[in-house]
Amino acid sequence: MPTVAILGASGYSGQETLDRVLRHPELELVALGSDSLAGEPASALDVRLNGSLPRFVANDAVLEAGADVLFVCLGHERAAALEPPADTVVVDLSGAHRLQDAALYPAWYGFEHPRAAALDGWSYALPELFPPAGELIANPGCYATAALLALAPIAEAIEPASVVVDAKSGVSGAGRELKQSSHAGFVLENISPYRVGRHQHAPEIAQALGFPICFVPHLLPVRRGLLATCYVQPTAELRPLLEDAFAGSDVVRVLSEGVVPELARVQHTDGAEIALFDDPVSGRAVVVCALDNLGKGAAGQALQNANLALGLDETLGLRLAGVLV
Amino acid sequence: MPTVAILGASGYSGQETLDRVLRHPELELVALGSDSLAGEPASALDVRLNGSLPRFVANDAVLEAGADVLFVCLGHERAAALEPPADTVVVDLSGAHRLQDAALYPAWYGFEHPRAAALDGWSYALPELFPPAGELIANPGCYATAALLALAPIAEAIEPASVVVDAKSGVSGAGRELKQSSHAGFVLENISPYRVGRHQHAPEIAQALGFPICFVPHLLPVRRGLLATCYVQPTAELRPLLEDAFAGSDVVRVLSEGVVPELARVQHTDGAEIALFDDPVSGRAVVVCALDNLGKGAAGQALQNANLALGLDETLGLRLAGVLV
Amino acid sequence: MPTVAILGASGYSGQETLDRVLRHPELELVALGSDSLAGEPASALDVRLNGSLPRFVANDAVLEAGADVLFVCLGHERAAALEPPADTVVVDLSGAHRLQDAALYPAWYGFEHPRAAALDGWSYALPELFPPAGELIANPGCYATAALLALAPIAEAIEPASVVVDAKSGVSGAGRELKQSSHAGFVLENISPYRVGRHQHAPEIAQALGFPICFVPHLLPVRRGLLATCYVQPTAELRPLLEDAFAGSDVVRVLSEGVVPELARVQHTDGAEIALFDDPVSGRAVVVCALDNLGKGAAGQALQNANLALGLDETLGLRLAGVLV
Amino acid sequence: MPTVAILGASGYSGQETLDRVLRHPELELVALGSDSLAGEPASALDVRLNGSLPRFVANDAVLEAGADVLFVCLGHERAAALEPPADTVVVDLSGAHRLQDAALYPAWYGFEHPRAAALDGWSYALPELFPPAGELIANPGCYATAALLALAPIAEAIEPASVVVDAKSGVSGAGRELKQSSHAGFVLENISPYRVGRHQHAPEIAQALGFPICFVPHLLPVRRGLLATCYVQPTAELRPLLEDAFAGSDVVRVLSEGVVPELARVQHTDGAEIALFDDPVSGRAVVVCALDNLGKGAAGQALQNANLALGLDETLGLRLAGVLV
Repeated sequence: MPTVAILGASGYSGQETLDRVLRHPELELVALGSDSLAGEPASALDVRLNGSLPRFVANDAVLEAGADVLFVCLGHERAAALEPPADTVVVDLSGAHRLQDAALYPAWYGFEHPRAAALDGWSYALPELFPPAGELIANPGCYATAALLALAPIAEAIEPASVVVDAKSGVSGAGRELKQSSHAGFVLENISPYRVGRHQHAPEIAQALGFPICFVPHLLPVRRGLLATCYVQPTAELRPLLEDAFAGSDVVRVLSEGVVPELARVQHTDGAEIALFDDPVSGRAVVVCALDNLGKGAAGQALQNANLALGLDETLGLRLAGVLV
Repeated sequence: MPTVAILGASGYSGQETLDRVLRHPELELVALGSDSLAGEPASALDVRLNGSLPRFVANDAVLEAGADVLFVCLGHERAAALEPPADTVVVDLSGAHRLQDAALYPAWYGFEHPRAAALDGWSYALPELFPPAGELIANPGCYATAALLALAPIAEAIEPASVVVDAKSGVSGAGRELKQSSHAGFVLENISPYRVGRHQHAPEIAQALGFPICFVPHLLPVRRGLLATCYVQPTAELRPLLEDAFAGSDVVRVLSEGVVPELARVQHTDGAEIALFDDPVSGRAVVVCALDNLGKGAAGQALQNANLALGLDETLGLRLAGVLV
Repeated sequence: MPTVAILGASGYSGQETLDRVLRHPELELVALGSDSLAGEPASALDVRLNGSLPRFVANDAVLEAGADVLFVCLGHERAAALEPPADTVVVDLSGAHRLQDAALYPAWYGFEHPRAAALDGWSYALPELFPPAGELIANPGCYATAALLALAPIAEAIEPASVVVDAKSGVSGAGRELKQSSHAGFVLENISPYRVGRHQHAPEIAQALGFPICFVPHLLPVRRGLLATCYVQPTAELRPLLEDAFAGSDVVRVLSEGVVPELARVQHTDGAEIALFDDPVSGRAVVVCALDNLGKGAAGQALQNANLALGLDETLGLRLAGVLV
Repeated sequence: MPTVAILGASGYSGQETLDRVLRHPELELVALGSDSLAGEPASALDVRLNGSLPRFVANDAVLEAGADVLFVCLGHERAAALEPPADTVVVDLSGAHRLQDAALYPAWYGFEHPRAAALDGWSYALPELFPPAGELIANPGCYATAALLALAPIAEAIEPASVVVDAKSGVSGAGRELKQSSHAGFVLENISPYRVGRHQHAPEIAQALGFPICFVPHLLPVRRGLLATCYVQPTAELRPLLEDAFAGSDVVRVLSEGVVPELARVQHTDGAEIALFDDPVSGRAVVVCALDNLGKGAAGQALQNANLALGLDETLGLRLAGVLV
């Protein structure tokens, strides 16, 4: 059974990755990395984690010990410096290996990429659209996942310059770190746009689509989940393209005409919903994608990618069943 | 002192109008209309309303008794049928008199306008942009107010076909009526678009701007407040236009560059915030307007309009002071 | 494989029961009853329910067809009138069979029990405390489950007259029905007590404990989950009693000293958390139980009870794994 | 006109005090103290604060300059060290001068009181119950205010040992500081008790009542507001005592029988609601008090106290009018 280690297991995406690994029938967890919790039992992160799990160790110790699959849930800059171990499936949930053009990192991520030459060894993998092409996998950003699920299948049937993506995300998208914009006194009963025109998922979307778009994220007063409302000028019929793209998928569901997408229906799951509307007033089409930023937008997709790289059934370990209210 | 009566005083917009009338130093409340609460004391609506207020009476009785100012907080169809009393400032908070073209009512409101010929006697009044021109005042919709504050001052400096308005509103926008989409089990920890391409504020915005736009509203898990994110392709510099439009306003505040608009900062107030951003990736500009759907988006604006029609200071009775957290 | 039918499958508790049945490896769903959705496909309730599920049929038709296990998710009065089919495990999630003394129904439920003589054929079953004693199972109320998990193991070690249970529940506890107190405009940014001294779970708790207590529920602005804070005057050491009671449980977790219980940690699960604190000021002990009102407080417990009655592993179908944020 | 200065004006209670001072017709703001914002304009705290306000200066500079009224919104330990200027009304919103017995500070506040001998120069002032007795005023804690409004008027008519206060507060009660328990990822869709048996408002309540009680606070997923549910064993009729205590009050409203108190109705106001219920099961009475922790629980009460000390109308500057939804 392939062994798994998680670097940065105590952040939100690390904890969610752990959740999927624990429910995966064909993976064996061997190490939990966390510099802040090193030496502590797993229950120090969450009392639901029982005593049979490995204790946290420093991230460097995890790297030294190795595993068949490595989930990297570190900060962008730390992840960028990582030398990937040989013969290992490495799924990087940070943005450190998503942009093929290293020159983009200073402007969008705020640092020079320390291993620029190695970037083309990584494949940007969004299973329904671009499955992983090797062992080194750059897991897409949450906003990018939603925008690409909505737009990539129809990219040839819309006017590129017309695209606007207005996205709304729960606060877990900003991570567990303490900051003013994650303080509940700011988040509750509020909504605000942020990093308008400057969010690091914009170049990732442009790279995958082949053209730039206008992208604005907003912070919602919800714990988790993300809704991307995508406005496009269509040049052909869009519904067949979307339905074909996800026809066999257990993960992405294209809603029938008239069914409204809901954040709540994808929260705590690794699935996504896509709905298509027309706007008779402007002639635009509106494609809406809902997913859980920590599920399909992070840990769920990371597991899908790892499963594919290992030759396993893509949905093992995922949170897909269930019809919770 | 001018006398005031409110029709439909027991709904959200009626109650908020009452709130402003009570804090207005130069208006005298003489009647509270409500068919469902007729005969009850004001405290039946809210225990904060004390015993010195008039009891609720049927709306028809209010009309018969008359007043110098009449605030109409009834449903659209009911309000449309109203024959306005002579020599009375009538501020209609419903959509019944907003569209000058009666032919639009069946498609957008679901009924034939019963007094189509009288529509041109009403002025669509948004004080900062188009002050009331007579005694019969159609008070703008909440979404329309936000979109127009953001777009009307720059309408000549943008490409009309480029405009997308993605709006998000708290649940009070849907009124006090019981319906599935206002059930807390649906609203909490959720967001969803609704009436995509079919919302009745779209033609109202088009009428005021002179061109149609793409408009999609979303329901937020907050009690009140509304944020409209407007995407435009600029053809000239926009900031001076916005700053000039609201330079002397005590109601609308154009935020300095880099200051992020927040729903929370306008909740429970009659003010609005406008912020302008550029998106270097797409070349678009993003104009964001935040206001309280029950304040500047309804009752606050209704009072502004009444004040202007009576020749009073525009801000009397408004909730503008204050720097609450 | 035992067959399962659900009466009232379109309400919250019905839908959650369906969720558990679908994830149960040894039960076969054969019928979904709903009078309001009869004739509709399962997806009419929730688009996550796929086409292989049975269509909804009228509840009476479900009863006629029969099944090995029947989950009754109907209103109290409707469930009370039900004649249970022979040779069937019937788990009633309503309150219709919880009180052994039929004379209590008019005061607490508002109706005369139509089958009073049959009440003693039902066992009030809370698996960790009182496992089912036959095929007819009265599933405990959500508040009662929380209060009893906290209090039943220590009932002999506290002064009965000292007990106060202050409980707080999410809005799903009030069901999917439209009512003023479930309107999001009332629920959001609010909390209020309700049915003080008159809630129907009070006599159920008293019956199970053997003495009456003071119980006050409050409505929280959350979708789901319930926290019961129980105040008691101890006469002996309480921690060992709680730890012993749940020592082997996969469902109920007694938290170590100093660990604070959280609603969020049990939401969407069928588990429960119990924490014990002392109050040095008053000499009281405070026992806090957190659970999901739709999980351990309803559907999860119903599955546990059905599993036990069928001789299956108690936790089959339950939502227990997982360490979601 | 009396001049006013605020120390610690950039925290939640400081900002709310500023809000009341700005709406007060007979006070003149002369200085805003904040060590973190010293040198910045008032708008650095909130863009709603306009340019005519004084810039922030260091707290020590405010003290040196002096004013007729000084509102102290500093941390407990910092406030305790303050040497109050002569001939000045000083209202301390921290806990530094609430406990008359200096020996209690180490256990409940974590520090030795640096000016223990001066403590008896301060009066603990809750206007409806104990008006200020001099210029040095210790403003009560938010929980203590709610508990005392509910319990002080009935203290002689209940069994002291029976009292349990279960309180629930919005997140603003924990201040603007960044900490794990104020992170929105923790607060949203959650509730949890905290500092059980160890909260610093417990001794303050005991001191004012003359006997200790059992007090447990909980953190609610709301921005602001506080509800205290108080359980007591009555020895006489309680309703007349409550109604008499607040008969002439414009601030505290005793609700009629059957009216349910609501947090939402007191949010953003300086008022409080009290409701009395009986529990026929246990014979207990339940007194519920709702107020805004930043209003009547902090800044509103501070203004009341200052008004009384200055001989002004008690409600000047308060947020009392209004019937917002």
